[in-house]
Amino acid sequence: MRPETIDRIRKFTEDRNWDQFHSPANLAKSISIEANELLECFQWSDEVYDFEHVKEELADVIVYCQNMLDELGLDADEIVNEKMDKNEAKYPVEKAKGSAVKYDKL
Amino acid sequence: MRPETIDRIRKFTEDRNWDQFHSPANLAKSISIEANELLECFQWSDEVYDFEHVKEELADVIVYCQNMLDELGLDADEIVNEKMDKNEAKYPVEKAKGSAVKYDKL
Amino acid sequence: MRPETIDRIRKFTEDRNWDQFHSPANLAKSISIEANELLECFQWSDEVYDFEHVKEELADVIVYCQNMLDELGLDADEIVNEKMDKNEAKYPVEKAKGSAVKYDKL
Amino acid sequence: MRPETIDRIRKFTEDRNWDQFHSPANLAKSISIEANELLECFQWSDEVYDFEHVKEELADVIVYCQNMLDELGLDADEIVNEKMDKNEAKYPVEKAKGSAVKYDKL
Repeated sequence: MRPETIDRIRKFTEDRNWDQFHSPANLAKSISIEANELLECFQWSDEVYDFEHVKEELADVIVYCQNMLDELGLDADEIVNEKMDKNEAKYPVEKAKGSAVKYDKL
Repeated sequence: MRPETIDRIRKFTEDRNWDQFHSPANLAKSISIEANELLECFQWSDEVYDFEHVKEELADVIVYCQNMLDELGLDADEIVNEKMDKNEAKYPVEKAKGSAVKYDKL
Repeated sequence: MRPETIDRIRKFTEDRNWDQFHSPANLAKSISIEANELLECFQWSDEVYDFEHVKEELADVIVYCQNMLDELGLDADEIVNEKMDKNEAKYPVEKAKGSAVKYDKL
Repeated sequence: MRPETIDRIRKFTEDRNWDQFHSPANLAKSISIEANELLECFQWSDEVYDFEHVKEELADVIVYCQNMLDELGLDADEIVNEKMDKNEAKYPVEKAKGSAVKYDKL
């Protein structure tokens, strides 16, 4: 996200004094809760869903992820690149291409 | 995230032909599954957790969110700003300050 | 479940002194975590799944539900019947028949 | 649960022709969604929660677990006892007593 968007998320929390609720554990719960509101858009059908609702719920997940990055003093680019290093090693192209099998069964 | 990080996520998927598995419903499931691997870091304690493990699981959630943005042709800044418009209206500072109460009970 | 099965679950917890970890919040996290291990069986396909794995993960969810009932001094039949009273009122047969629409849109 | 309670759950589904929506994958999603409505009761506090709300959400999880047992032709006692055999072997009392450590680190 752009720095202005990240700043807007931070300011929203600060203006409401909500940092006090943003423990890592509470934010982990919140990410799961919002992820399941997103999942609810697909509860009974994989194909028919409310696009506007999906956008809102996905945004909620992203906002809580940013809150957790902030709470833990982390940078999205840094942790994602570290994880992609591992994913690329765990799923070599020649083995994983076109397969949905988990790395420990490749 | 920076464009290079987003490109790396996209290239990882494309190189493995994994777009075929990335239906919106499958990605919604994946975000919830990874969110719960993150939650598992806090299953029995809110205070004691494995920081490196938390970083990895949070990165996994962020990567699947980016996959879903890509699958649906969405931009993180756009949907987050649209959602923040709504959040700011739902939780006015004067009412929400210091309170963890849900908007419909404010 | 039969009383012997419920007793076996209780004895398992007691023998290991695990009641100390079974706060309602920790058990709510645990139910969600196990529910997502169950969901993972269907991450990339709705039709192809490992039946033995599904049985194990569903059992894990049921065990943590029993732990939560025990922790809160609740009886499954009682709370389920109370909830079914509400569900039957919210989803009248003539309106809900054959429809997956949520009650507030019926 | 008592046979009458299980029959009530089954009749509720049948009367509404909802079996058509109860694929194993959809029920796995539903269990996770309800588990997270239960988790939401503890989103910002582990100690202060709405007991009546907790009872309802826990009942919802249990009802969807019964729906999944029915869909897959499974018996709760059978799969729970099979899983408890494994749990007892994975977590021997002498090693696991008083410890919240996962079996692969015991």
